[in-house]
Amino acid sequence: MLLLRRCYSLTRCGRVNTQRLQLTPVVASCAARLWSSSSGEDQRSYQHIHRLRWRHAVAGLLAGTGAVLAYGLHHHQAEQSESSEVQIVEKTSALPVFTQEEVTSHRSLEDGVWVTYKGGVYDITEFVAMHPGGDKILLAAGGALEPFWALYAVHNHEHVLEILSEYKVGELSAEDQKKQQTVKSSDPYSTDPERHPVLRINSLKPFNAEPPPEILSDNYITPSAIFFKRNHLPVPQVDPDSYLLQVEGLPKGTLALSLEELKTQFPKHTITATLQCAGNRRSEMNRVKQVKGLNWGIAAISNATWTGARLRDVLIAAGYSQGVAEWARHVQFEGLDKDVTGTTYGASIPLNKAISEEGDVILAYEMNGEAIPADHGFPVRVVVPGTVGARNVKWLGKIVVSAEESSSHWQQNDYKGFSPGTDWDTVDFKSAPAIQELPIQSAITMPADGAVVDRSAEEVTVKGYAWSGGGREVVRVDVSVDGGKTWQVAQLRSSDKGQAPEPSPAPGRAWAWKLWEVTVPLPSEAEELEIVCKAVDNSYNMQPDTVPPIWNLRGVLSNAWHRVKVKIREDECEE
Amino acid sequence: MLLLRRCYSLTRCGRVNTQRLQLTPVVASCAARLWSSSSGEDQRSYQHIHRLRWRHAVAGLLAGTGAVLAYGLHHHQAEQSESSEVQIVEKTSALPVFTQEEVTSHRSLEDGVWVTYKGGVYDITEFVAMHPGGDKILLAAGGALEPFWALYAVHNHEHVLEILSEYKVGELSAEDQKKQQTVKSSDPYSTDPERHPVLRINSLKPFNAEPPPEILSDNYITPSAIFFKRNHLPVPQVDPDSYLLQVEGLPKGTLALSLEELKTQFPKHTITATLQCAGNRRSEMNRVKQVKGLNWGIAAISNATWTGARLRDVLIAAGYSQGVAEWARHVQFEGLDKDVTGTTYGASIPLNKAISEEGDVILAYEMNGEAIPADHGFPVRVVVPGTVGARNVKWLGKIVVSAEESSSHWQQNDYKGFSPGTDWDTVDFKSAPAIQELPIQSAITMPADGAVVDRSAEEVTVKGYAWSGGGREVVRVDVSVDGGKTWQVAQLRSSDKGQAPEPSPAPGRAWAWKLWEVTVPLPSEAEELEIVCKAVDNSYNMQPDTVPPIWNLRGVLSNAWHRVKVKIREDECEE
Repeated sequence: MLLLRRCYSLTRCGRVNTQRLQLTPVVASCAARLWSSSSGEDQRSYQHIHRLRWRHAVAGLLAGTGAVLAYGLHHHQAEQSESSEVQIVEKTSALPVFTQEEVTSHRSLEDGVWVTYKGGVYDITEFVAMHPGGDKILLAAGGALEPFWALYAVHNHEHVLEILSEYKVGELSAEDQKKQQTVKSSDPYSTDPERHPVLRINSLKPFNAEPPPEILSDNYITPSAIFFKRNHLPVPQVDPDSYLLQVEGLPKGTLALSLEELKTQFPKHTITATLQCAGNRRSEMNRVKQVKGLNWGIAAISNATWTGARLRDVLIAAGYSQGVAEWARHVQFEGLDKDVTGTTYGASIPLNKAISEEGDVILAYEMNGEAIPADHGFPVRVVVPGTVGARNVKWLGKIVVSAEESSSHWQQNDYKGFSPGTDWDTVDFKSAPAIQELPIQSAITMPADGAVVDRSAEEVTVKGYAWSGGGREVVRVDVSVDGGKTWQVAQLRSSDKGQAPEPSPAPGRAWAWKLWEVTVPLPSEAEELEIVCKAVDNSYNMQPDTVPPIWNLRGVLSNAWHRVKVKIREDECEE
Repeated sequence: MLLLRRCYSLTRCGRVNTQRLQLTPVVASCAARLWSSSSGEDQRSYQHIHRLRWRHAVAGLLAGTGAVLAYGLHHHQAEQSESSEVQIVEKTSALPVFTQEEVTSHRSLEDGVWVTYKGGVYDITEFVAMHPGGDKILLAAGGALEPFWALYAVHNHEHVLEILSEYKVGELSAEDQKKQQTVKSSDPYSTDPERHPVLRINSLKPFNAEPPPEILSDNYITPSAIFFKRNHLPVPQVDPDSYLLQVEGLPKGTLALSLEELKTQFPKHTITATLQCAGNRRSEMNRVKQVKGLNWGIAAISNATWTGARLRDVLIAAGYSQGVAEWARHVQFEGLDKDVTGTTYGASIPLNKAISEEGDVILAYEMNGEAIPADHGFPVRVVVPGTVGARNVKWLGKIVVSAEESSSHWQQNDYKGFSPGTDWDTVDFKSAPAIQELPIQSAITMPADGAVVDRSAEEVTVKGYAWSGGGREVVRVDVSVDGGKTWQVAQLRSSDKGQAPEPSPAPGRAWAWKLWEVTVPLPSEAEELEIVCKAVDNSYNMQPDTVPPIWNLRGVLSNAWHRVKVKIREDECEE
């Protein structure tokens, strides 16, 4: 949206100088993208930009059509980009050499926006306003383009490289190109996998990070690389060939399953399920009063497809029968991730969720159609759809059917909700149930808090996600631009744009989020908008209005209405 | 609480005049009740009052012990009171005769409080302040005592009648004693059953009424007589001997079951389940902006035990098998209640709720251990625990397994939730799902809005109920006396005081409400309290803060924080 406004004022207000006129293909791309919203058309639309004259493009902008910027990445495969096969056309052959430090010092419109690509250094400051994907390009400022282009396959085309080549200003020093690979071997986190640089890191060791919100809602299925990461301990190195999953507590004694057995002896089951950290949106609680925990923004939530064996089938193979339900109440999970004392991560879920056909709990070995990445539990994690992330144990080593809940710290003395009046002196962890199903949630991913929209735009498009725990389907999202006085109903979707929607879930089995969007006219008098969203699930649960009454000392379950403030800038031409 | 304060100031401030001193046994009863909280002790405590000297009673009051007034009725059986066997002792033999109109004109402390009992007229104005049950006695003002005493078996004792006899002022005219039986036979509602006069009537035809809130929370199991009544049509007259329940839509063809067959051919199953009208607390939405619907207060919710055959068992007997689940999605219910066109009441629920063992849906023929009363669906109603009242079809005539939801008005064009921005011009009933599970709910039953507490009391006891739909258990109720700035956690209970709590429900099968109570010190500076409650269920769903953002044109799903205002009266002695 912001970029649109910028394109608009550039053209309409006569600020397109001669230098920009030389860049007409790029300006045209800005418009071309406006009427291309299908991911399948990415290649064609980037070619299209060269066939369009920029005046046509401006006409499109003025008409205000297609206010949606489609980045075009809809699947993880895109990460395996083949951009390396595309040859970059060099504008000049003798350019200065820059250090990474020098590049990194250019990461704003004020200081200039520099990026690197395959050893080249590019000053793309002038291009930012024309980037079809809006100012998301700034996420790469001061660093390498490769990981972003890997996410957004639309860049993987000759024409894009031609445009980039015009901005080349130098070469990155050879030393800096190698530097990034260095790791300390004594560090228990030294074997943690590489992560995508777009992630916003809340904690490096253990690794906890979330994607920028505006990228999150670009994809109905979150690419694994930007799926939020929430590790409690170092990522364990698991050899898939010697991996054995232990199943204990059932009449037949311990069952040990190899990865191969898990894959071949049980029906393969795929679900699309959203996982959310109990601490998602904790930062809003921190603004009320400091809580303990990672300062998550609104993106500790993501949606993926998960494939594996049903836990139910594995428990039955291990000897589960009706008789077990007479004494057993819980199914415990132990991870292979350990702290320095050898204590593993652990959690449990109620037996009825684990054993129910409708519960859809799976022992997943695939995420988004590929082997589960190291950060997400390779080779096997449990996926408990509708249930807080903390019970979806990764690097699963052991399953225990038991009368009692897991005795782990995370089940007993963490991940529980308390009254706002409860503090660390008065808290009794035994008094609250372990979080399992999560309450109704929604948040605004665009525009960002503090963004500016131009008055001439006349309207603002608001986007976000909504989800509820326990398989309850989101049935409505209300959006307000006046702080909650008046409301409009957003349009919901269960797939990426232009793709067939996922089939309607069975009652109680709506495990995946919905993305939503609404375009609202700018109120004529307002100088600032307070944009608010709230979702409703099919049990008609609603989000609470404000944060303080749900504040709790661990900062979990933060699901009050999400609010962002946006300034309206009067059109500069009319000043 | 209010009565306690009154007792307290009567004694402490020296306002006990000689007339009152003659009534010491009654004052003593006020205190005696304070340390009697078990229903089993009702008889003894009413005897006890004659053995206690009133000074002892005052000492008990000053000590502030046992601030709970137990009315002592905990079960419907109490309604079958044997008070008629008790002979009233007449103080005088020749007293004036009054008409019902004259009696009815005395229904306040200002005009005097008159009641009738077995043809006698009593001026109990002086007694009101000393009534052990507090000012609930005013509910009977201007009318007959019998139905109230039937509810509260504690009155069914000689000593109570002795006290009453002292207040006799006359006889009720013979004509007025007969008048109440007259009904118009042409009226389709003429055969509607008699109702308890304590009910607050929202609509007479069809009959819709709720109990006074302070009585509602006196009983964990709501006596059937005061269980809220929500009829859409006249109560049908059903002959239990010729009654046949039709079950259609299954491979074996139509199954017709007599009441006797339903009772004897299927296992008898009992559940304790709370039913709530979708419109409960609608009056709070009306205060924001007028909605369509009955102006329910906070008591269109009640809790009972229900006994009957499992719907699941009946469907299986009628030919249900896994194959049916391939095409069927819903189970429809038709009532025997009809409008003038012959259209019956109807509704449906999802098949998976109907067929699940954990769904606990029953075809109930008993309520609170007795045949279901006419107003509640005699001889058979469906009880769908965790689901909105409207789907718990009464006077059940037909069950249909189907691919589609019920086509009834109440399923399609009513009982759905909409955004606050949706009005009667823009509403599209197809856009919202029929309400099934209800969201988290709680309300304050005591003190009442506008009540007054004395500063000398130093504290206020707040009571209420909390419940959530879908079998989600209430795990916490937060109470604030400063409008929501600070919160205290209330004590929850799942039974009447002094009785063993109901066993903990299995996960997802918490069908019954919790009653709650908390005693909070009076803030030293406050002149008025804004008392607020909010509940949390075990999916950690919370109630929204305010009414306007959940307002909807039908006024359903009103579950914002409940708020009552209470004035603090500075102690009169200290003036």
